Amino acid sequence: MSQYYIGIDLGGTNISAALVTAQGAILCLEKVPARVDEGPAKVIHRILELSRAVQQDAGVSDRSVAAIGIGAPGIINIEKGIVLSSPNLPGWVNIPLRQKLYAATKKTVVVENDANVAAYGEKWMGAGKGSGNIIMYTIGTGVGGGILIDGEIYHGACFAAGEVGHQTILPDGPVCGCGNRGCLEALASGTAIGRAASAALELEPNHHDSPLLALCLGDPSKLTAKMVFQAAAKGDSIAKKVVEDAAFYLGIGIASLINILNPELIIIGGGVSTAGEAWLRLIRVEVKRRAMKDTMACAKIVSAKLADKAGVIGAAGIALHALQKSRDYATAARRARH
Amino acid sequence: MSQYYIGIDLGGTNISAALVTAQGAILCLEKVPARVDEGPAKVIHRILELSRAVQQDAGVSDRSVAAIGIGAPGIINIEKGIVLSSPNLPGWVNIPLRQKLYAATKKTVVVENDANVAAYGEKWMGAGKGSGNIIMYTIGTGVGGGILIDGEIYHGACFAAGEVGHQTILPDGPVCGCGNRGCLEALASGTAIGRAASAALELEPNHHDSPLLALCLGDPSKLTAKMVFQAAAKGDSIAKKVVEDAAFYLGIGIASLINILNPELIIIGGGVSTAGEAWLRLIRVEVKRRAMKDTMACAKIVSAKLADKAGVIGAAGIALHALQKSRDYATAARRARH
Repeated sequence: MSQYYIGIDLGGTNISAALVTAQGAILCLEKVPARVDEGPAKVIHRILELSRAVQQDAGVSDRSVAAIGIGAPGIINIEKGIVLSSPNLPGWVNIPLRQKLYAATKKTVVVENDANVAAYGEKWMGAGKGSGNIIMYTIGTGVGGGILIDGEIYHGACFAAGEVGHQTILPDGPVCGCGNRGCLEALASGTAIGRAASAALELEPNHHDSPLLALCLGDPSKLTAKMVFQAAAKGDSIAKKVVEDAAFYLGIGIASLINILNPELIIIGGGVSTAGEAWLRLIRVEVKRRAMKDTMACAKIVSAKLADKAGVIGAAGIALHALQKSRDYATAARRARH
Repeated sequence: MSQYYIGIDLGGTNISAALVTAQGAILCLEKVPARVDEGPAKVIHRILELSRAVQQDAGVSDRSVAAIGIGAPGIINIEKGIVLSSPNLPGWVNIPLRQKLYAATKKTVVVENDANVAAYGEKWMGAGKGSGNIIMYTIGTGVGGGILIDGEIYHGACFAAGEVGHQTILPDGPVCGCGNRGCLEALASGTAIGRAASAALELEPNHHDSPLLALCLGDPSKLTAKMVFQAAAKGDSIAKKVVEDAAFYLGIGIASLINILNPELIIIGGGVSTAGEAWLRLIRVEVKRRAMKDTMACAKIVSAKLADKAGVIGAAGIALHALQKSRDYATAARRARH
């Protein structure tokens, strides 16, 4: 009998769920608004409803679903499956998510941080296939990250590892949401890119010619990273400078981590990563200027491949992986007894 | 029968070797000049002579020596025990150190990078006892480092991980030996501290009053980090500023790695670390200002404990550890067969 996995991506805005095969193919993918302001109990109820929906809509029996994986924003005690805290989910403090989902489904449930899940998804089915030591940057509203070591998610001493967006790049740089100054997130996130373009536009006396102004319908405060990359692609000098600066800051951060962690792969994902190959080239130039010869020799920098499906695929992947590990363990224990 | 381990610390200047018990006690420690300019063959000969000497001088039979560990500067293929390259050992390119030592001793030989060995030594018998996730900074002429994850040395994708001294702190800072600008090593190594004090002294019109000048016998170019810390302890304002700056740069680097790797322990070792608790306090203040609440919650910053013995103790420790792992593996394999 074939076995399937449900992968769930819980975000501050939406919940996505997919029914995924053991080979990583999505049979059914559905999305509903998360309405997180209604509190954990209602959100968990919606997660369960959506899980049942994808299973039924894919025409798969409940018995064929082997395990459920879920990625949630925030700090997760992965051993106990508890959401310890989450800046994007109001009221989620010490929520025993695994226990709640298990009680309703009687299936193996694995809970993980969402950025870690995305990194695992890329490793399993995307840009990271075949690589073991990976650092993934998820660049969107903020800059998140996940670190894989020997193919396993690295969690650190208290489940908080992977905050690659909170590396200080400019000691006296702009204030970051975390309270520090000059974090990568404050310099190269989508938000930071939009803000930098808006500030640059205000300072530029001839800005009436800039395509940026048309893109934001005359209101620079409405500029997004997407508009900035569009204008840069059209040759707008203000946008080009902002894009180059962001690549410069990212390059500095990546080069340092290449020297320290000696990964084989750096994956750039998240909404901003759709800026594409031209931006990646700028990043690579800066990294190459700064990283050491020996650590640089085995490091590649690539774009993510799974886009917004990395979450559900990765969540299914960690469920499958957890099941495999517990079976391996059971086999070894059985052998040891005999 | 008791078993003993020989730990060897191969440096650019000296070779140290110790006979160490399975409990980490040194029975005998000896040191000879390495004379690395004479090439690998002669150095390896001296390593073997010194190993025999510590074994005999400790009054231990050759049969009681279970394994040999050696830490060498440079990049080591730890799987094959080959020194791939070493900036401090002329002519050491692809030198099969393990094979050479095994041929002469017929014992298990483990070869490791020296900074990793020091970190392992501190974990086994020093400041890192009981901790699994550790980042060690070795601050001397340069800034080296070692990363332990779940108690094991982290090597990265091509044996080059742990270069915490080559994290960019100031993007436009001074040129580093590695070619990059603004690396931690170029800002907070012993060399950088001496150089910064010397430059500050030249700029200061009233520098004739500075105790720094007396310490360097009137020649600022001869200033060492040790002199700078001495003068700072006496209240010299130039020296105090240099010491504060170095702590600021180190604090920035450490805070970023706390956010990214979420370690439970940061150990500051190497010659400069003897500056002691006052300097550590300055570093902690900067780290606390910059690291995130969640990652900071479980991170401690402490001084190394083993001083220049971390190398030989760590080398003996990795030898013991390798032997234990191969025995565990053999036991598991035997059980699996039955």
